[in-house]
Amino acid sequence: MDRDAILGAVAKLREDGVSLLSDLVRSPSLLGEEGPAQDLMERIFRDMGLEVDRFAIDEEALKAQPGWSPSLISYEGRENVVGVHKPRRATGKSLILNGHIDVVPTGPEELWSAPPFEPVVRDGRLYGRGAGDMKAGIAAYVMAFKALQSLGVQPAAPVYLQSVVEEECTGNGALACVARGYKADAAVIPEPFNHTLQIAQVGVIRCELEVTGRPAHVLDTGAGLNAIEAAFRVLKHLKALESAWNHPDGRHPAYAHHHHPYNLNVGHVEGGEWASSVPTRCRMELRFGFPPGRAAAEVSAEIERAVAEACHGDSDLKGIDARVIFRGFQAEGCTLDPDHPMLEALDAAHRSIFGTPAPKLAQTCTTDVRNFVLYGDTPATCYGPEAERIHGIDESVSLDSVAKVTAVLALFMADWCGLETIDP
Amino acid sequence: MDRDAILGAVAKLREDGVSLLSDLVRSPSLLGEEGPAQDLMERIFRDMGLEVDRFAIDEEALKAQPGWSPSLISYEGRENVVGVHKPRRATGKSLILNGHIDVVPTGPEELWSAPPFEPVVRDGRLYGRGAGDMKAGIAAYVMAFKALQSLGVQPAAPVYLQSVVEEECTGNGALACVARGYKADAAVIPEPFNHTLQIAQVGVIRCELEVTGRPAHVLDTGAGLNAIEAAFRVLKHLKALESAWNHPDGRHPAYAHHHHPYNLNVGHVEGGEWASSVPTRCRMELRFGFPPGRAAAEVSAEIERAVAEACHGDSDLKGIDARVIFRGFQAEGCTLDPDHPMLEALDAAHRSIFGTPAPKLAQTCTTDVRNFVLYGDTPATCYGPEAERIHGIDESVSLDSVAKVTAVLALFMADWCGLETIDP
Repeated sequence: MDRDAILGAVAKLREDGVSLLSDLVRSPSLLGEEGPAQDLMERIFRDMGLEVDRFAIDEEALKAQPGWSPSLISYEGRENVVGVHKPRRATGKSLILNGHIDVVPTGPEELWSAPPFEPVVRDGRLYGRGAGDMKAGIAAYVMAFKALQSLGVQPAAPVYLQSVVEEECTGNGALACVARGYKADAAVIPEPFNHTLQIAQVGVIRCELEVTGRPAHVLDTGAGLNAIEAAFRVLKHLKALESAWNHPDGRHPAYAHHHHPYNLNVGHVEGGEWASSVPTRCRMELRFGFPPGRAAAEVSAEIERAVAEACHGDSDLKGIDARVIFRGFQAEGCTLDPDHPMLEALDAAHRSIFGTPAPKLAQTCTTDVRNFVLYGDTPATCYGPEAERIHGIDESVSLDSVAKVTAVLALFMADWCGLETIDP
Repeated sequence: MDRDAILGAVAKLREDGVSLLSDLVRSPSLLGEEGPAQDLMERIFRDMGLEVDRFAIDEEALKAQPGWSPSLISYEGRENVVGVHKPRRATGKSLILNGHIDVVPTGPEELWSAPPFEPVVRDGRLYGRGAGDMKAGIAAYVMAFKALQSLGVQPAAPVYLQSVVEEECTGNGALACVARGYKADAAVIPEPFNHTLQIAQVGVIRCELEVTGRPAHVLDTGAGLNAIEAAFRVLKHLKALESAWNHPDGRHPAYAHHHHPYNLNVGHVEGGEWASSVPTRCRMELRFGFPPGRAAAEVSAEIERAVAEACHGDSDLKGIDARVIFRGFQAEGCTLDPDHPMLEALDAAHRSIFGTPAPKLAQTCTTDVRNFVLYGDTPATCYGPEAERIHGIDESVSLDSVAKVTAVLALFMADWCGLETIDP
């Protein structure tokens, strides 16, 4: 199939793609509420003529699997949906196209220019929670596949279009796909990383820090130990870990030139009861980024040790009790050989649209890529559109960029999988 | 009436007092839930043969009153209860005995040795939320009055036994008594201040600090402004105010020898949404103690100015937005002449029980005393039992101490008001 025909088909479907993306953004697939968006994905896959494998996540079975992260909530009513393409005759290389349907919380809605789940197009960008991260990527792989179909052709190899839950907090959705036996010669996740090819990602651990102080009346705050202030003091000690990991001497080579790859974030805090009591309890939700190559269990132990040492060694923390509870990501970092044939093929497709090579990216967050690379025997990367303020207020994605990613994915699929006519 | 007769009557009623105190502790009169405990107070006053004045707090009318603090919640169903004693012939000095029925939150109940609203007596102490602060004080003034009655006598002057709401957050309950016209030659509040005579109390302002940062993905925390960390940074600037007020050179004379009279407490914090987003918002509840003699409005303005200066002058706070919302106490400090006749009379009663003078106390919290002194033309002090961990876990009061305070109040009442026989 001729390159221009594919690009022409992608261009023709551009408005359909915007409308699909809008429909997806309109479905507020927050953690625990992914069901309706997955219903939509199932309809989309069925309309494309794909077989649909919709399956629940078997928490008990998955716990035995390496890569498991402690769940935050139940999996009741929160299935993965996979659109399965089987070629008439498999002559090319198989492919997984994966995207996560879950989106992060909106933050205070009144800070948004428009309601976060009512998509708005302005100056060539589509705004809404999940628009960039990563419903645009899902729309792109769907439209790429549809563009080929509109030309009367389809991939000449198995292709699995996966819409998974829980990428944002555990990755157990993608891990469940791996456990179900999905593997392929390559996996691409169109995360909104601005047309870069991901060759490394950091490890991420999420935990809660719970600090118990000593309550007292405010008439003599010195008689008590303020749990809120103590929690911040413990955080300071944990920031010392962050600094040590980021020291240029000890960096993983993929991050040698990055200014600050391993980030510790305090994302939520809740403590105390009442202005006039010295607070007894404070709880913080923390997120640690750490170098690839380190085992999650080893890093968790290092965090626990740092907290214990702070409690014993810091005189300002005498008498407090601090414990760490690990929930959510226990995600190890991973890397991919920068010369992998999949990267070369994706780069070729990218160059044919952009005229320049795709930058290689060592990513400072985690993605579901690790599940395929570390536990699924499937080389994987991220390649997706340009987005702004993902996880923030007024998240948006460039619609031009989504169209370009769609074209790259269509060209890559044609090249990697080969093509066959739909009707023999 | 002979001193020993009064002490004998008080001793005889000791177990009744413990049982009354237990009943009061069993009624969990948290903010907004004072109704059932006030029903109990009304029954107690009626059983004593007092007239009962139970009245709602007229928020709109009170707002015009000096001393008003912005309410936290509605006054629906939260009346004050006053037991009014009218003598047959008023020959002595009138008296207000005041106590607040509201108690502060329990904190995590699992940290308590026994459930906070199930009173337990152990080693001569009664444990429970409110046991010390200040249901023991209410029980003491009730039993003091009953002890006199049991001898066939009553005060020969008007005595008002007040059970008020909301001492712990606004003081609007006692202020409403003042506005209703209650005044007397003296007021005593048996706050659990360990047999001391209060001669000064600090001002207290409560407010919320709301900080808005700049949200971002944790993959580059440096791109965002963490609202939680920013709120702590602002707090640091406010602690500079606390330090300045506590500087020995600028202290109010009543606090000249106190090690740290003016306390800033962060009593509650809540911020962020999710471990993996740089948080947008953080809110802290703060309590400032400040010197007597300063107007609440002037101190509020100083706090607001400090926050504004922090936002403009601290490079770590560039781009954040911080505002202060004043809710709860806008309570000015106050003092009482240490040689006031009421203090002399109370001290005489104290000496007759303890053999030594009652220490004079410059208190580092606020009490309803200010409402009587500043706005009610009534000299007022606190004199109450020995309690431990008020506002904390396992609050308790010494039952011996409660019995002694009961005796002191009975002797003081007999002296200050004079006595007359109940039946002529």
